This record gives sequence, structure tokens and C-alpha cells, in this order.
Amino acid sequence: MGKSQSCNYNKYVNIAWICIIVILGNVYELVVAADQHPELSWSKRAAIEAESVASKSCSGHGRAYLDGLIVDDSGAPVCECNPCYEGPDCSQFIPTCSADAGSGDPYFLEPFWMKKAESSAVLVSGWHRLGYTYSDGSYISKALENEIRQLHDFVGNAVTKGRYILYGAGSAQLLSAAVYALSPQNSSSPAKVVASSPYFGLYKTQTEFFQSRAFEFAGEASTWKNKTNSTTQFIEFVTSPNNPDGKLKNPVLQGPNAKAIFDRAYYWPHYMPISAPADDDIMLFSVSKLTGHAGTRFGWAVVKDEAVYERMVSYIQENTMGISRDAQLRAFQLIKAILQGKGNGKEIFDFAYKTMSKRWERLSKTLSATSLFSIEKLGAQYCNFFHKVRHPSPAYAWLKCEREEDKDCNAVLEAANITGRKGSAFGAQDRFARLSLIRSQDDFDLLIDRLNKLAYEESGTRFM
Amino acid sequence: MGKSQSCNYNKYVNIAWICIIVILGNVYELVVAADQHPELSWSKRAAIEAESVASKSCSGHGRAYLDGLIVDDSGAPVCECNPCYEGPDCSQFIPTCSADAGSGDPYFLEPFWMKKAESSAVLVSGWHRLGYTYSDGSYISKALENEIRQLHDFVGNAVTKGRYILYGAGSAQLLSAAVYALSPQNSSSPAKVVASSPYFGLYKTQTEFFQSRAFEFAGEASTWKNKTNSTTQFIEFVTSPNNPDGKLKNPVLQGPNAKAIFDRAYYWPHYMPISAPADDDIMLFSVSKLTGHAGTRFGWAVVKDEAVYERMVSYIQENTMGISRDAQLRAFQLIKAILQGKGNGKEIFDFAYKTMSKRWERLSKTLSATSLFSIEKLGAQYCNFFHKVRHPSPAYAWLKCEREEDKDCNAVLEAANITGRKGSAFGAQDRFARLSLIRSQDDFDLLIDRLNKLAYEESGTRFM
Repeated sequence: MGKSQSCNYNKYVNIAWICIIVILGNVYELVVAADQHPELSWSKRAAIEAESVASKSCSGHGRAYLDGLIVDDSGAPVCECNPCYEGPDCSQFIPTCSADAGSGDPYFLEPFWMKKAESSAVLVSGWHRLGYTYSDGSYISKALENEIRQLHDFVGNAVTKGRYILYGAGSAQLLSAAVYALSPQNSSSPAKVVASSPYFGLYKTQTEFFQSRAFEFAGEASTWKNKTNSTTQFIEFVTSPNNPDGKLKNPVLQGPNAKAIFDRAYYWPHYMPISAPADDDIMLFSVSKLTGHAGTRFGWAVVKDEAVYERMVSYIQENTMGISRDAQLRAFQLIKAILQGKGNGKEIFDFAYKTMSKRWERLSKTLSATSLFSIEKLGAQYCNFFHKVRHPSPAYAWLKCEREEDKDCNAVLEAANITGRKGSAFGAQDRFARLSLIRSQDDFDLLIDRLNKLAYEESGTRFM
Repeated sequence: MGKSQSCNYNKYVNIAWICIIVILGNVYELVVAADQHPELSWSKRAAIEAESVASKSCSGHGRAYLDGLIVDDSGAPVCECNPCYEGPDCSQFIPTCSADAGSGDPYFLEPFWMKKAESSAVLVSGWHRLGYTYSDGSYISKALENEIRQLHDFVGNAVTKGRYILYGAGSAQLLSAAVYALSPQNSSSPAKVVASSPYFGLYKTQTEFFQSRAFEFAGEASTWKNKTNSTTQFIEFVTSPNNPDGKLKNPVLQGPNAKAIFDRAYYWPHYMPISAPADDDIMLFSVSKLTGHAGTRFGWAVVKDEAVYERMVSYIQENTMGISRDAQLRAFQLIKAILQGKGNGKEIFDFAYKTMSKRWERLSKTLSATSLFSIEKLGAQYCNFFHKVRHPSPAYAWLKCEREEDKDCNAVLEAANITGRKGSAFGAQDRFARLSLIRSQDDFDLLIDRLNKLAYEESGTRFM
């Protein structure tokens, strides 16, 4: 046997053995992988489609959605750009565009959910919950109710033990459900619905729109102080923390004929130190200002009195036959993702508070450079959730225009190319205006830019 | 060199080559597979979870849902059984259980969506549509609107060209939106809301519940015939085909002060031959009776008059700030799955008609064996959609109890262990009762069994 042949022989034996080991290794890996990641079948198309849409590059100034109206040549939805950005990949800034600080679209939480993509995604099968009711015959997902109670216990912002919980399409629908529930049935004297300004505009428009014989909007709560001993029922909307000014509020009217509906949409550590669990007769919450999902239209009411709860449930039944099971499933997955996140659920509150407090720092610095506007300072408080003394970081800035001639504060903003909301939309003077601080980072950055420019021009004028 | 060594040498060379070819083959397959099935990342958990829940064996008498209240030891949701079935896998029939023909839960379409699992699934990302509005500032997904128009064009059941479309939480919310829109604003004379019995009970309960100054329920339409020349506005609910009796209906009241709201929820080939596209001033539709998704709470209105449309939009805005974006996304995916299915969308109508007509065949056969009940026969018509003469196959059977003493027809059904709905819930006599025929196959089979038993017992009594 020649040396070279013997050498080749050994070489081939070695190669053969290596090959066999590699193949066995592959087979083992495939078996393990199949066990860890079972092969997907019917769900794969939807998953691939969602990831494909999500991977669309929109330059950080927009995003594509599954149900986008405009699709590209391949049938895939195109980017929907943030205000002030355009182009196929949203990369082009529109310099003349107005800074949007108008509506309370809570896009500031979008980056959080993009980071939590895996835990927050939900795949809905075609046959998910076809029927009108859950298996207990109700319109209310009890699994979601359990999560809601768990979340309130964790945050410590509301007492839910021994309380009834029902759902509405956002807190909007629950507002009128509560008004109907508290109004007299078959009485010739309609209940008077009041609030103290500045207040959320929907309280007035909604109450007036329904033209009910059972209730009517009666304006400022303080007008009716010491007049509640009559047989007229008073229903007072109390938003605490308040939209638009961020203050904690109490009912103005007291007495046996005065009932309050507490809108607690903003009583989360994002916006306000949690000093104690709220324990009002009727409390309204919504995912909109908790998780940022305004579009899901999902809110809940925590109610003490059984009869009031039952009447609210009747309203929701007559109005919409309960709340979309898809909205309930989404809320279920989102709150589950929160509760199963780092720190047993603390992560979203850390993120939201950090974002909001940073925004307030920047806004305060900017506003300190101008004498055009003032904002009432809210005092720091001990937060039982964060175990720290913290300043409020409200969802909105409630500006007062300080110059005598600036009777229309929103017009001053408009002139500076900023979209706010005028004071009269909140039952207040137009010397006030609201700026929304919970929109996207793009919107907020542009708002600060525009305010800085205004401050700079004003200081120039002042010292001219 | 020995013979055996030479032989081994060749063997090892061959093994080595085979191995190399196998490995190269594997690598090629992996590359091709990766291209055909891109690796999933963040969506995988949700997809695996959905398939795992769907694969839960519930013996064909139930199914598990992602948001099930009760979970097993591994944290996975357990089976939710159809009425009359129990046990961990829903395999145990409860013989004493009442046959459920009560509510209109449209589970008869569940098998269709299970078959269409792939095309109907939708994966919702955590950041899907956070904001209040779509990118055009409206509450209405235009992509879904396009599909709805396409579907009506395909089926030929409604004129949508030049018409406005808006959404509601099921047709329930659209009913009151339409009533508000047609009622006088700031008039001392409320509109009279009427219907002709038998009619869907919600028309009355909803109208009464809202206690509006703008409208009031005024009962039977025929009572007001020839009295519409006054200044009072009349609003007539016309359900066509009708719930509960399946008949095509026209408004009873005519004249300049009479307006009709057409509830067209059942005007699909499932239930009624499509003789012509409906072209009413206000038409209401809903996914509930089209796709079977009652729980999604999604309906739409097709409206001729712009001012009426605008007022309906205002109602939806004040009431719930639009409809859940999750419900809209679900409806979008379902209608897309219909339109992209076999026969350009014909498949679901074939399935639904076949199911309903089979059920009617069985029911008619059963009822022919007893003189206890009668049903008014609906005539066959040419269906433009199926291009055939076809008998209606309504969603409900409207029974009349024929024996003099059976003044409460629902009580007769209850005595036979059947849950129906009494005539007075439809503004009719209790000599009538409604049976829902659109529930699960289990419910329908049990209904037929119980009716057969009743017929058998009755014939025994008759010939005794």
C-alpha cells in the first residue's frame, strides 16, 4: 500500500465520520427546534403579513398599518406619516406645517409597544367569539375584569374590592351611561348636569346632543351651590386629575340630591403622583390614557351601588349590545403584557412617567423664556406607586395668555403655527388654551421648536 | 494493499460523497425555505398561542378562546362548551338541557370560518392604530369602506354608488343614530317612532330607554295611517326581510312627514333571494348576520341624504367617538377573506344558503308531522345572485300555536324543553313565538329532536 493512498484512505474515513456527526447534529437540532417552535400552519400568513407591514421603513416619522388605504405595487400598505412629514418613507419634513398639539391622541406610548412587540401582539382567529355573549351570558369578559382589578391593586389608584365593573366604548359611552343611571326615571323634573370649568368639552356637547327628558346640561356647578335642597337631582362631572388643567378636583355640590361622576382617566402614575386609591361612587377609566390605545375605544367604570351599575349595564345593552369582543380581547392582551412585564408591571409606568416628565422639563424651560404665557404650577406629592416625592406631569398644558391684548390665546398659538385648543371648548375664557403633550415625539419636538421661536421673537421685541 | 482494505477505502469515499451531497441538499433546502417562509420574530408567540388554543380538542361541541376565563394547569384556556354539552372536552351531553333557539347568535357560520382559518386570521400588533382617527382625520376606515361597496356590488343587494357610508357598533347603535338624525331639532313636538308588528324588540326598548325630547315610541305604524298630514314627524322602522317572520316589508306610512329606516341586516342570499338591489334612503347592515360575527359589534349604514348622514356621524361621535379600530380591522380582514375566496366571494353565500336551506327542509318536515304549529309559507323568487329560483330560508321561524288553548306559544315550547322567544317581545300576540335557526348545529339538532318528540307525542294523543 502506497503512503499517499493510505493517507487518502484515512482522510476519507475522517470526512465520512465528520459528515455523519454533522448530519446527526442537524437531525438533533431539527427535533429540538420542532419541539421548541412547533410548525405554524393557518396562522402563518397573518403573522408574516403583520411583520411585513411592521418592517416597512417610515424613517421613524410614520408607520404602515395592515388596513392602510393606499397600497403599493405589491399590494402592501404604504407609510402613514406623522403630521408634518411626507414622502413614501415619511422622510421629508414640511417646514410650513403647523405643530399639532390639538387632540389627545396618546402616541407618546407607541415606542413602548414597539419595544413590547412580542408580548403585546394578538392573533385573532376567524371564529373568535362570534356570539353576542361570553359563556356566562354577559357582555363582559371576566378574564379581562380580573386583569383590571389586578392592575388597580398593583398601581393603588382605585379601590375595586366589592365594586362592580362594566365596560364602555371608551369613557365617552360610560359618561352618558352614568348620566342616564343617575337621572330620575319618569320624573317631570330633569336632572341638572353640571361641571366646573375648565372641563372636558364632551360633558356639555354629549348631554345636550341627547336631548333627554331625564337630564339637561346646566353649566357651572358653582352656580347651583346652596341650591341643591330642592327636589332636582344634580349630576356633577368631576375629572380628577382634570382635563385640561391637571388639577385634582372635588365635587362642588354636596347634599343628598347631588351625585358625582368621577372621570379618573388621568389618575395613573404617568400624569400624577398616586397619593391614595380613589374610592368614588362612580369612577371611569379608559385604555386610551393608560396604554395609549384611544382607537380601541375601551373604557371601564368602577361602581359602588348595584342599582346604578345595573342601569349603566342596561344603557350599554340598549345602546350597543355590549362592547366589541375584539376591543376586549385587545385590552386583555395589552394589560396582560403590562402585568407580565418587568417589575410585575412597573415598566410601562416608568416609561410613561419618564417621557412625560422629560417633556414637562423641556416645556417649562421654554416657557420660562417668555412672558407671553403662564401655567399654574402644581405642587409635588409623595407617590405611593413610585415611593418618591414627584411633580405631576399632566397630559396637557393649560396656558394663560398674559398680555392684556391676547384675549384669544389660541389665536396667538395659531399665529406661531401651533394647533392648540381654545379655552371656550372647555367652558373657560379664550384667554386660555390647551396644548396636548401626549402626542408623538415628532409633534412634541415641533411644538417646542415653535414655542422657542415665539419666545425668541418676543424677547427680541421686548428689548427692541 | 489487501482486498478488504481497498473495499473499505471505496466504501468510505462513497459515504463521504453521499454525506457531502446530503449536507449541500440540506443547505439548499434551508435557503429556499427561508426565502419562501421568512423567519418570524415578534409575531411568533401570538401565532403559536392562537394555534395552541385552536387545537384544543372540544369534541366538536365547543371551542377554547384566547381570552377564556378558566385556564388549565399549564395556563391554557379550557373548552367553552355549546349549550347542553359539558366536561373538560365538551363530550358529555346533558339530556335534561333545554334546546336553545332563543337569541340570534349566528354560530351557523362558525364552521365556514374554521375552514377559512388562514385567510381570516389577523395579527394585531401592539401599536396598531393608537390614535382617535385614521390618517384622513375620520373615524372610518376607508379601506374597509371600499370593501363594503365592492361586496354590495358583487351581491347586488344594495345600491351604494353616490351614497354615504358610516359605521356603528352593530346595527343597534345605528338605529338610534338614524332616529336622532331624522328627529326634529329644537321642536316642541317629538317625532313619533313606529313599526309594524311583529318587529324587532330593540326598536321599542331603545327608543323608550333614551327618553328623548326629540322622539317617542308610538307603537303600531298602522294606527297612524292617514294621520301623517300634521306637523308631526313620523319615523318608521322597516326590517326587510323581517325579524322575526322573514317577510319582505314596505313602510306603512307615506307622505312628506314620514321617513323610514330600513334595517337590511337579513337581506343577504343566506336568507332571501336577492331580487333587486335595495335603494332606500337609510339602509342598515351588520357583520353579525352576514359573516356571523355578532360579537364584533360592527355595522354600517348606507345613506342617501348628506345632512342625515352628517347628523348620524355626529351621533356616533358624541356617543362613542367612532367605532373600535380593532372591530374595523376584524371586519376588514373578514370581508377581504370573503372577496378573495373561491368564486370571487361566492363561497360564503353558497355555504350559508346551503346550511339554512337544509335546516328549513328538516324543520318543515318536522312541523308537517304536527298540527300544533303553523308557519306562513313564503313564496319562491328568482335570485339574481344565484341565478336560480329559490325559496327564502329566513334566520328565524315565526310559529303560530294553532290549538285554541295555546294562547302562550312560548310556554308550549318551554314545556317541550325548547327555549324560544315569546311573541310579545316583537309587539305581537303571545300565540306566536320565534325560534332562532342560525345557532350552532348542536342547538339546531337538539331543537329538531325536541320538536320531533313533541310531534310524536301529539300524534299519539291525537289518535288515542
